[in-house]
Amino acid sequence: MHGFEVQSVRSIPDWLRGRAIHHPDHPALVAPEGTWTYRELYDAACEYAASLRILGVTEGDRVAVIAKTGVKYALMMHAIMQLNAVVVPLNWRLTGIELAKQVEDAEVAILLFDEGGATLARDVLQHVQPRYGGRAFESIERTTERVERSDIELTHMHAIIYTSGTTGVAKGAVITYQNHWWGAMASAMQLGLTPADRWLVPMPLFHVGGMAVLIRSLIYGTTVVIHNGFDVSAVNEALDSGDITMVSVVPTMLQRLIEHRRAGYPPALRCVLLGGSAAPKSLVARALALGIPVNQSYGMTETNTQATTLQSADALRKVGSSGKPLANMRVRIATPDGFTDEAGVEGEIVVQGPTVISGYWKRPDANAKSFRDGWFYTGDIGVFDEEGFLYVLDRRADLIVSGGENIYPAEVESVLVQYEGVREAAVVGQSDPTWGQVPVAFVVKASEVEMTELALANHCRQLLAGYKVPKAFYFVDELPRNASGKLLRRILKERLQ
Amino acid sequence: MHGFEVQSVRSIPDWLRGRAIHHPDHPALVAPEGTWTYRELYDAACEYAASLRILGVTEGDRVAVIAKTGVKYALMMHAIMQLNAVVVPLNWRLTGIELAKQVEDAEVAILLFDEGGATLARDVLQHVQPRYGGRAFESIERTTERVERSDIELTHMHAIIYTSGTTGVAKGAVITYQNHWWGAMASAMQLGLTPADRWLVPMPLFHVGGMAVLIRSLIYGTTVVIHNGFDVSAVNEALDSGDITMVSVVPTMLQRLIEHRRAGYPPALRCVLLGGSAAPKSLVARALALGIPVNQSYGMTETNTQATTLQSADALRKVGSSGKPLANMRVRIATPDGFTDEAGVEGEIVVQGPTVISGYWKRPDANAKSFRDGWFYTGDIGVFDEEGFLYVLDRRADLIVSGGENIYPAEVESVLVQYEGVREAAVVGQSDPTWGQVPVAFVVKASEVEMTELALANHCRQLLAGYKVPKAFYFVDELPRNASGKLLRRILKERLQ
Repeated sequence: MHGFEVQSVRSIPDWLRGRAIHHPDHPALVAPEGTWTYRELYDAACEYAASLRILGVTEGDRVAVIAKTGVKYALMMHAIMQLNAVVVPLNWRLTGIELAKQVEDAEVAILLFDEGGATLARDVLQHVQPRYGGRAFESIERTTERVERSDIELTHMHAIIYTSGTTGVAKGAVITYQNHWWGAMASAMQLGLTPADRWLVPMPLFHVGGMAVLIRSLIYGTTVVIHNGFDVSAVNEALDSGDITMVSVVPTMLQRLIEHRRAGYPPALRCVLLGGSAAPKSLVARALALGIPVNQSYGMTETNTQATTLQSADALRKVGSSGKPLANMRVRIATPDGFTDEAGVEGEIVVQGPTVISGYWKRPDANAKSFRDGWFYTGDIGVFDEEGFLYVLDRRADLIVSGGENIYPAEVESVLVQYEGVREAAVVGQSDPTWGQVPVAFVVKASEVEMTELALANHCRQLLAGYKVPKAFYFVDELPRNASGKLLRRILKERLQ
Repeated sequence: MHGFEVQSVRSIPDWLRGRAIHHPDHPALVAPEGTWTYRELYDAACEYAASLRILGVTEGDRVAVIAKTGVKYALMMHAIMQLNAVVVPLNWRLTGIELAKQVEDAEVAILLFDEGGATLARDVLQHVQPRYGGRAFESIERTTERVERSDIELTHMHAIIYTSGTTGVAKGAVITYQNHWWGAMASAMQLGLTPADRWLVPMPLFHVGGMAVLIRSLIYGTTVVIHNGFDVSAVNEALDSGDITMVSVVPTMLQRLIEHRRAGYPPALRCVLLGGSAAPKSLVARALALGIPVNQSYGMTETNTQATTLQSADALRKVGSSGKPLANMRVRIATPDGFTDEAGVEGEIVVQGPTVISGYWKRPDANAKSFRDGWFYTGDIGVFDEEGFLYVLDRRADLIVSGGENIYPAEVESVLVQYEGVREAAVVGQSDPTWGQVPVAFVVKASEVEMTELALANHCRQLLAGYKVPKAFYFVDELPRNASGKLLRRILKERLQ
């Protein structure tokens, strides 16, 4: 009409390359092992990428990583990105059996691991099916060659992150570059941004929350500070130094951080981003009383972290809320009568926006169920107040969140009933002062069978990550069910109290 | 391959609607006439949009605005946006004759104007061709009806902004929503962003610089502070109040602001964005010495403002530079041997990135010349230093920048030669302590003709905006030309000194 066509923006210059060219000396990663500037990080990524290419990795290949050292994880991730390959971060809290399923499902070409992940990686390889054609490599070396990419295609896959589901079978959430780009921008608008930001991640990088901080800081050209695991005094020391402007934590971490504190942190710390699960109101109130700028958020792997976040300005008067939708996001409540934004109406939280993933890896069944008419059905129950602040009432019906890790009862139950003599099992969350919740099991055994709690725990430990293993087993004659046979977990929870 | 297709992000929720829903009480516009919250701004926009619809405006129609009152301009712009119509902001410093050409070129459906723009609007209407079918309306009223839009299509046109060119014929730069979105994000990454930002615009809103601040603040959900024109003491007072965090100025404004100051501004003022033209080094040095956080930028209508900006951290050691490319932008130097990033090599600055417009409105000739192989040829001459900082050496060869307004000699010359008895004319920029540069003319008249400077000035004033009228006319026997007849402006400039 006006003589030319306007095209959607489909590709942009590679983020790491751009930063290395324009801000080479700015620190990109700060870790116990050292500091990497953007130039150093870029050089390392390109040289590791060349090693991966020599191993046969090409565009679109899935490369899994088991790394207990955060900076090694970060280096591998950047190398994989330069190859336009796809990162599959593996949760090293899971067992070899659990991870073998993910490696097979993603058809991983190469499994990378560091020294701390070596035992687990070998365990994974023992449990993959013989038809699995992938290979495993520890600590690949840098080469003198380089593989670099010039551009990022926004719709291309960046990562597959596995998330357990109500069915107990992990699903691979496909995260694209545009999910990251829009998420980074939305987060900056909600939380603010300064070129001098330093974001501390004292949590594992294999979760979407850790990965998002790595990628956001890359996009912003700011600095990530990595701790290898959560150490209360190390984190407090880092925050007290006045060097850190933002930190991501789950509620149990925040609780441990402020347990014995009588004062807050230096004013440089402008955002404590709380994710993973809803924090107890008392915890948020106590943190705010200490002057700690807590921002409760609500999100999940499928929304590439924050879908809503409570801004500091509202934190005090809206304690318990997860805040407002981020820029360009829509959040509504699904009811039997359709979607609503009305205050006080409870229902399933549905989310739409450019940070929401397009689907799970090769799971048409799950995709048809969770992604409908442009909306993602979270399975979580929520309600808006009169001012449109979201309160999350229940995470995915029966989800147990323990120290920031999600536990789906169905997965644990399916392991329990594999044990000889277990007829039925039900797993629910019990309140715990340290972890928020821990799983406990109710077990119906065949009458003639002898069974000990320890034997059941050992059985679970072989097949499940430690945090998923029930902390107590109660033998019962039958499980409470309604007329149509549906398990009434609510009644089991009441019994625990 | 993985069971679903990933689509580019093509539409997002309407920015104003989103802010009105989620942050209704946050101030959107602060002006001498009052303050509008996001809710109030949204209600006004929707009700004015309904008025425009009653007048027959529909999606894609061009609506021109002549408004001397900034807030009226802003309200009209938002109303036009709710209709998915296209804003054509008119520069009220131009004459009716000049603007009539723009109105015709854009095929404007409706011309809106405020009280201050009434005389000029009538003048425009007198000069449009009889075949022009558009209508003009002063101060439309709000209705009780509303027109709202739900989503923004990122590739749709938001505005056509006219920019003069070397040929003297104004070209309509087509600015899309995605130009704004990516520009806002790049600016936030370069300059930082806080939810409490208040950005002062003491410059007209019809230029891309003013419009960009309006749209960016809308996208961020922050506050724009509008002054109707530049008043030194009003701006100094606003900055001294500690209320303002960012301000956009052209060099002549900065000079007048700090002329008699002995101290800087409160620390709340974190960014003085310098645009329009390169500031004299002495001016930047003096501002920095006062502790004023000056950020020199380089950009133009076709890049939807900043293509490069010097960050505060580098301001002192790189005085005179326009800084580094913004995120996702590529800036290179075109030479006869191809593009280069090499330090010290001078050549035409070429720019690529998502804030660059896709073309001029219905100008295949100009588009073919300026937009080639994905790059925009700026016509400006520049050079990189060893660290990749850009220095702009010469704005579009013979461009004269006077108080932030661009003057193309060719346009003024074409008006001069229309005057009876003028054989040839050449216009060049003369240094001026207040305006940076002012135009002066060298005129070759027919030998037999009597001619006064005043008569020429009056002739120009009828056809050209006041700032384009030469401040002096020198009668000469001939113009300096090279062997092939090309005018040597350089020699004229030397004569002025």
